Amino acid sequence: MPMNRNRISVLLLICLAGALLDAHAQDAGKSLPERLGFPRDTKLLIIHADDVGMSHSVNAATIKGLDTGLVNSASIMVPCPWFPEIADYAKAHPEIDFGLHLTLTSERVYYRWGPVASRDKVPSLVDKNGYFHHDWSRDTHIDPKDAELELREQIDRAYAMGIHPSHLDSHQYRLIVNGKELFEAFLRVAHAYRLPVFVTRDWFAEHPYLESTLGPDDIVIDHTVTIDPAVPPEKWAEFYRTAIKNLQPGVTEFVIHLAFDNDEMKAATRERDTWGSAWRQRDFDFFTGQEFRLLLQEQNIKLVTWRQLGGAVKQ
Amino acid sequence: MPMNRNRISVLLLICLAGALLDAHAQDAGKSLPERLGFPRDTKLLIIHADDVGMSHSVNAATIKGLDTGLVNSASIMVPCPWFPEIADYAKAHPEIDFGLHLTLTSERVYYRWGPVASRDKVPSLVDKNGYFHHDWSRDTHIDPKDAELELREQIDRAYAMGIHPSHLDSHQYRLIVNGKELFEAFLRVAHAYRLPVFVTRDWFAEHPYLESTLGPDDIVIDHTVTIDPAVPPEKWAEFYRTAIKNLQPGVTEFVIHLAFDNDEMKAATRERDTWGSAWRQRDFDFFTGQEFRLLLQEQNIKLVTWRQLGGAVKQ
Repeated sequence: MPMNRNRISVLLLICLAGALLDAHAQDAGKSLPERLGFPRDTKLLIIHADDVGMSHSVNAATIKGLDTGLVNSASIMVPCPWFPEIADYAKAHPEIDFGLHLTLTSERVYYRWGPVASRDKVPSLVDKNGYFHHDWSRDTHIDPKDAELELREQIDRAYAMGIHPSHLDSHQYRLIVNGKELFEAFLRVAHAYRLPVFVTRDWFAEHPYLESTLGPDDIVIDHTVTIDPAVPPEKWAEFYRTAIKNLQPGVTEFVIHLAFDNDEMKAATRERDTWGSAWRQRDFDFFTGQEFRLLLQEQNIKLVTWRQLGGAVKQ
Repeated sequence: MPMNRNRISVLLLICLAGALLDAHAQDAGKSLPERLGFPRDTKLLIIHADDVGMSHSVNAATIKGLDTGLVNSASIMVPCPWFPEIADYAKAHPEIDFGLHLTLTSERVYYRWGPVASRDKVPSLVDKNGYFHHDWSRDTHIDPKDAELELREQIDRAYAMGIHPSHLDSHQYRLIVNGKELFEAFLRVAHAYRLPVFVTRDWFAEHPYLESTLGPDDIVIDHTVTIDPAVPPEKWAEFYRTAIKNLQPGVTEFVIHLAFDNDEMKAATRERDTWGSAWRQRDFDFFTGQEFRLLLQEQNIKLVTWRQLGGAVKQ
């Protein structure tokens, strides 16, 4: 009798494994909207505010944006001075789709930050004054081991201060566009913490190592849209309006940058206008405005979050 | 002949040494005003703004205060996020009496900073999240070796970024009131960099180790005045008016805290009013106002700087 029971159990397990494998194979063929429970060709949008924690102005504008329900996702820079403010907020609002905006640069001039890791453990990441490099040039040799240690320390500090991130992304796309080794480090960390990473198929042609490095369980979203310095301020709304009207089926992430154009933000970004104070106020104005709300309805666009994406894939 | 010449030289040297010793002895008997070239009983004042570098609001208000010529000295917090902004300003304005406000605490809740030294080299200075301790309790065991290393790193970063400080002082008086060992470390660093330290005779009774640790060449100013939380906002001007009218002969330092009461500063200090945003605006309003200018004239008070003090003592 025990023998028979064991045989039945083994058979049952084999059947179950087969069913799971089959489901997985079917799942792999599904579009992201289908995996999220929508019809195959649904237009899904993540309205994602970057750089939270960078300054109080960014925090305040992002919180106000999230309050409208139209901005529905954001990611947080752990090394920045105002991180404790947003960590406290995220802890009190676990329903919000906060990810971590993993940061290895300190790109401003008058307002700067450095690594979370002990500085002498990540020597390739810091400049002679101890801040993250202002920029990475050809002479900047980033050791992927240093990067990986720093990423882990950023995530550890976030958890320690009460954040349960829904995803990871990379400040200034440094971990995406700077070669296979850094992307591998990024992905290794994401897998270790079981967090999805913001990657889109849009980037595969230019950076083929992305596709070849990703595993079968990694989420890849379909498209991304972000405004760039070529758009003049008076064309801001038009750029977004056109992007929304041309939205493709699948999941698209709009990467936006919110802040209030006040003294703090003007001073922090005064050396250049790109991603500056007025830029961020324009983003805030558009994405919290009535036109954007009406466009979403008119185009039958649904909003999704990274938490939904992560959950759908883990099922 | 050579013998005679040598004898004469030795005699001359002995005379010179005697004269110098005598001058030193006379100098030791002189009041600080006399050493600065004023009559013995002159009332001299340093109007000293603390906490520069802490935020953009503090930087902007302090620069505006210094521009009036009435605020004539300030000290800079190297570990703070807005240090690069004020370092750039100090470098461009070497005539301004900037000292370093050596910092070992990060006393706010939503906006924080940590050591300039590599974190693992100063473990006793940091909390579990890697920031300087919010406060020092009885359970906080600060290793004076860690403190000394961190102080040196702060000064080194300041010089590296173009500041030539006129003096050193201690954020929240931590290096003054927390025992002989920390004060010794502070003084050792000051001597190594040949910089005067803000110490006043007012503190000797409560902390006798200050007087016994100081050497004969250390500058000790006569008095200090700083407003405290017991003064209600509506009595702000009255407090300073009374202090100015009761000013004693000698050198007094007014320790003040300037900022604009704006979004950034309100957010950075919102957990308590003491040394908060409105407090600092009140200080700004009084020390840049017409009443203060008239009071200085009426009371025949002269302003002096730490650079003058350091220069007078080095002569």
